[in-house]
Amino acid sequence: MSDSRERMLSSAMQLFREHGYSATGIRDVIAHSGAPRGSIYHYFPGGKPQIAAEAVAAAGQAGQEGLKALAQAFPGDPVAALGAFIGAWRQVLESEDFRAGCPVVAVAIESHDTDQPSAAVAEAFASWQAVLAASMTGVGVPQARAASLATLIVAAVEGAVILCRARRDGRPLEDIRTELVATLRSAVPG
Amino acid sequence: MSDSRERMLSSAMQLFREHGYSATGIRDVIAHSGAPRGSIYHYFPGGKPQIAAEAVAAAGQAGQEGLKALAQAFPGDPVAALGAFIGAWRQVLESEDFRAGCPVVAVAIESHDTDQPSAAVAEAFASWQAVLAASMTGVGVPQARAASLATLIVAAVEGAVILCRARRDGRPLEDIRTELVATLRSAVPG
Repeated sequence: MSDSRERMLSSAMQLFREHGYSATGIRDVIAHSGAPRGSIYHYFPGGKPQIAAEAVAAAGQAGQEGLKALAQAFPGDPVAALGAFIGAWRQVLESEDFRAGCPVVAVAIESHDTDQPSAAVAEAFASWQAVLAASMTGVGVPQARAASLATLIVAAVEGAVILCRARRDGRPLEDIRTELVATLRSAVPG
Repeated sequence: MSDSRERMLSSAMQLFREHGYSATGIRDVIAHSGAPRGSIYHYFPGGKPQIAAEAVAAAGQAGQEGLKALAQAFPGDPVAALGAFIGAWRQVLESEDFRAGCPVVAVAIESHDTDQPSAAVAEAFASWQAVLAASMTGVGVPQARAASLATLIVAAVEGAVILCRARRDGRPLEDIRTELVATLRSAVPG
C-alpha cells in the first residue's frame, strides 16, 4: 500500500473515531492526511463508502493482530490477555482525553447506501470474536461457551468504550474488566 | 409538552437511531414529523444540539421507565427482569429488520460543539445503571458489585445492539442474555 493511501485511511479512521462517519467529509480526510487532493479519487474511486469500508477493514485487521499478539504474550492464559486488552483500550482513550471511540462502531451505527461498509463492519467484529473464541477453546472452554463469551467480551468492551467517552473517565472499562475477568476465569476448566 | 413538540423529538430519536446524528438534518426532522417548518425553531431555539439533548433525555427517560416496569413485573427477581429486558430489545430490532440502534449511542459517539448533548448522554446511561443496580441491591447484591454488574449490563446490551445490526440478526443479544443471566444469577445471594 502506498504511503499516501495508507495515510488517508489512517486519517479517515481517526476522524470517524472522533466525529462519526457522516460528520467526516472527504475534504476533512484530505486536509487531515495532507495528501494531494486528486489522489484520494485515484485511490478510492468508490468515494466515501469505499474509504469507510477500507478504513474499517484496516481497523478490524489491527484489532485482530492486537488480540493475537496479546494471546501470544500470555500463552495459555486468556484471562490475563483479556485484562491486558481492556487495559490497552483504557490507555488509548485516556491518551485522547476520552474524545474518540472505535472507528468500526462509528461506521456500524449509520445506514449506508452501499453494502461495502456494513460488510466490512460485520467482518471486523466476527474476526475479533473468532480470535477471542480460539484463545478460549485452546484452554478447554467448550466451543459454544467460547462463542458466547467472545460475543459478550466484544459487546461489553465496545459498550464500555462508549460509556467511558460519555463520562470522560475510564471507570466503565475497569468495571467490565473486573466482571469479565471473573466470568472468564470461572469458565476455564481446572 | 405539545403534540408537535413531542412528535419532533420522537422523529429526531428515530432518525438518529437509523442514520446517526450528523446524517440527520433539521429538515429531515421536520419532514418526518410533519410539523410546520417554523415550529421547530420555536420549540428548539438552540437548534440541533438542543433537539439532540432533549431527544436523548426522552430516550433516557423511556429506558428508565421500561427498566422500572420490568423490575415491578418481576418483583424480587432481577434475573428474570434482565432476561425480559434483553428479549424486548431483540423484538424491537427484529421488528425494524435490524436497521436501527440506540438513539443515545448515536449521539454519544460524535463530538459536539456544545456540552448539552453529551451531558444528556451521560445522564441517560447513569440513570439506567442506577435502576439496574437498585434492583440488584434490593435482593442482597453488595453495592459495589451491583454497580459493576449494572455497568456490564448496559455496556454489553449497547454493544450487542450494534453487533446485531452489523449481522442483521439477533444472535449477539441471545449470547449476551445467556451469559449475563448466568452471571447475575450467581451474584444474587441464597
